Amino acid sequence: MALDPERLLKLPPLETRHSFTTRDTILYALGVGADDLRFVYEKDLQALPTMAVVLAYPGFFWQDPAYGIDWKKILHGETSVELFATLPTQGDLHGRTTIDAIYDKGADKGAIVLSSRRIEDSSGTHLATVRNTLFLRGDGGFGGQSEGAPRPHPLPADRTPDHVVSLATTQNQALIYRLSGDYNPLHADPAVAQAAGFPRPILHGLCTYGVAGRAILAALCGNDPARLKRMDVRFSSPVFPGETIKVEIWREDGDRAAFRATAEERGIVVLNNGYAELAPS
Amino acid sequence: MALDPERLLKLPPLETRHSFTTRDTILYALGVGADDLRFVYEKDLQALPTMAVVLAYPGFFWQDPAYGIDWKKILHGETSVELFATLPTQGDLHGRTTIDAIYDKGADKGAIVLSSRRIEDSSGTHLATVRNTLFLRGDGGFGGQSEGAPRPHPLPADRTPDHVVSLATTQNQALIYRLSGDYNPLHADPAVAQAAGFPRPILHGLCTYGVAGRAILAALCGNDPARLKRMDVRFSSPVFPGETIKVEIWREDGDRAAFRATAEERGIVVLNNGYAELAPS
Repeated sequence: MALDPERLLKLPPLETRHSFTTRDTILYALGVGADDLRFVYEKDLQALPTMAVVLAYPGFFWQDPAYGIDWKKILHGETSVELFATLPTQGDLHGRTTIDAIYDKGADKGAIVLSSRRIEDSSGTHLATVRNTLFLRGDGGFGGQSEGAPRPHPLPADRTPDHVVSLATTQNQALIYRLSGDYNPLHADPAVAQAAGFPRPILHGLCTYGVAGRAILAALCGNDPARLKRMDVRFSSPVFPGETIKVEIWREDGDRAAFRATAEERGIVVLNNGYAELAPS
Repeated sequence: MALDPERLLKLPPLETRHSFTTRDTILYALGVGADDLRFVYEKDLQALPTMAVVLAYPGFFWQDPAYGIDWKKILHGETSVELFATLPTQGDLHGRTTIDAIYDKGADKGAIVLSSRRIEDSSGTHLATVRNTLFLRGDGGFGGQSEGAPRPHPLPADRTPDHVVSLATTQNQALIYRLSGDYNPLHADPAVAQAAGFPRPILHGLCTYGVAGRAILAALCGNDPARLKRMDVRFSSPVFPGETIKVEIWREDGDRAAFRATAEERGIVVLNNGYAELAPS
C-alpha cells in the first residue's frame, strides 16, 4: 500500500494520555546528562523544558501498515518544541497529534511529513507543542506539492559564536535515555546498530537535543527553565554515546539565538540550524 | 518513648506489595553501574540477584515514633540476601518483614536489631529473603541480652585473594540508584550530607553492595544470576560517587567465597566480612 497523502491529512487527531511522576522527570534529566540538583533532586525540582519531547509520547505509531509508509526508511529530520507554560514535574497530560502537511520531494528523495503534538495538562492548560519533521525516504513521487515546508533557521556565516558550551555524554547515556520511552533497539543493541549501518549503537537524536537544551539553558537562560520559549533543530548526524557535544550559540536580535552542535571528538555537525527563543529578559 | 524490645518483637509482620516492570529492573542495574546488555536491555533481560534489596521495599519505616527508636542514630550495619529462585524482571511481589532479634550492647554502644523480609511472587513462590542488621546507636542499655547475633564471616588472613575486580562508579551513580526507591537526601543533597558530617553526598551502602554483586557474578558465576545463592556484607565505610570499588575475592570450600570491597582511591575498606554462596558448579 503506497502513501496516500489525502488520507493521512484527513486522519482524526491521535489522542494520548500520559501520567508521569517526579521520578520520570528526574530520569529524563539524567538521560540527557543533567547533574544540576534543580533537575535531578525532588526538592525544588524543575523540569527541563526539552522534556516536552517525551510527554504524551509518541503520538503516531508510523509502523502501522494502515499509514502506508515505508517506515524502515523514515528519518527523523527536525524537532521543534514551543513552550507556553513551565512544564510540571508530575501530572496527567493529554496529547493531541495531527499530521499538518505532506510534501513530495520526488521518487528519488522521498516525502516530508510535518506533524505536531499539542500537550495539555489535566486542567486543559496548553503547556507545549512539539513539532516533528519526518523524511520518508521511500515514499516520494506521489505527485504532491514539493515546496512550502518551513525553512531551517540560517546560522550566521560571518561571525564566531557568542557562547561555546561542551557537555560530555557517558557510555551508558542512551541506556538511561531510552527509559524515558524510546526503546528503539538501535540505541542499545550492537547487532541492530550494525544491521542499520552503524559501528555501534547511536544516541537518540532527541537525547542530543536535550543535551543541547542544557547548553542553551546554561548559556542564555541562567538555568531557568521558564526562560526558554522555543527550541528547534535539524538532525544532521548521529552522536555515539561517550562523545562530547559542543554547542555553539550565536545571540540574535530580540531574545533569539541560533545554534548548532558538533560531536567534538570527530568534528561532525550533529544538530544544525538550531533556533532558540527566550522570554524577554 | 524508649525502645521496647518486647513490643518490637511482638509486632505483626509488615506486609508490602510491590509491582515492578522491566524498566525498573533496568534502572536498578544502571543504578549499580551495570552495562552488560543482559542486565540493561529488555531483550533476554535478566535481573541482577542483588536487586532483591529493593523489592517489596522497605518494610519497616523506622522513623515512625511508634517504634520508640532514636532513628537519626541508626546505622545500616549488615545486609544479607538469600536467593531461592531466579528473580523475575517484572511482576507483582509480596514482602513480609519481621523483627527477628534485638541485642543490647550497652548504653554507650547501642542496640542491634535483626530484621528480615521474605519476598514472594504472586503465585506464592519464595524468591528471596533479605536480612538487615541495624545498629541503633542511641538505644542501648535497656537490659536485654548482649550476645547471640550472627558472627560476621571471617576473611582469610593468610593468603592473597583469588580474584580482584575493580569497578568504577560515576559522579551521578547515587542519583541514578536512588530512583530504585531509597530517596534519602543524604545521597543527593550536599547540605544534608554536610549536616551529617560528610564532605559531600555518599553512595547508598546498598548501591555499593550491588556493585560488589556485579564483581562476584563476573568472577565466580560467569555472569549467570542463577548461580548466586547468597551474598552477605558488613558495611564499614561509605563510598563517594565517582570512586572505584575494588572487590577482593577468596574462594573457599564448597562453592563458597569470602570477599571485601575497598574504595580504591582512598584505600578504605567499605564492605567487610563479605560472604557468597554459589550454586554447585
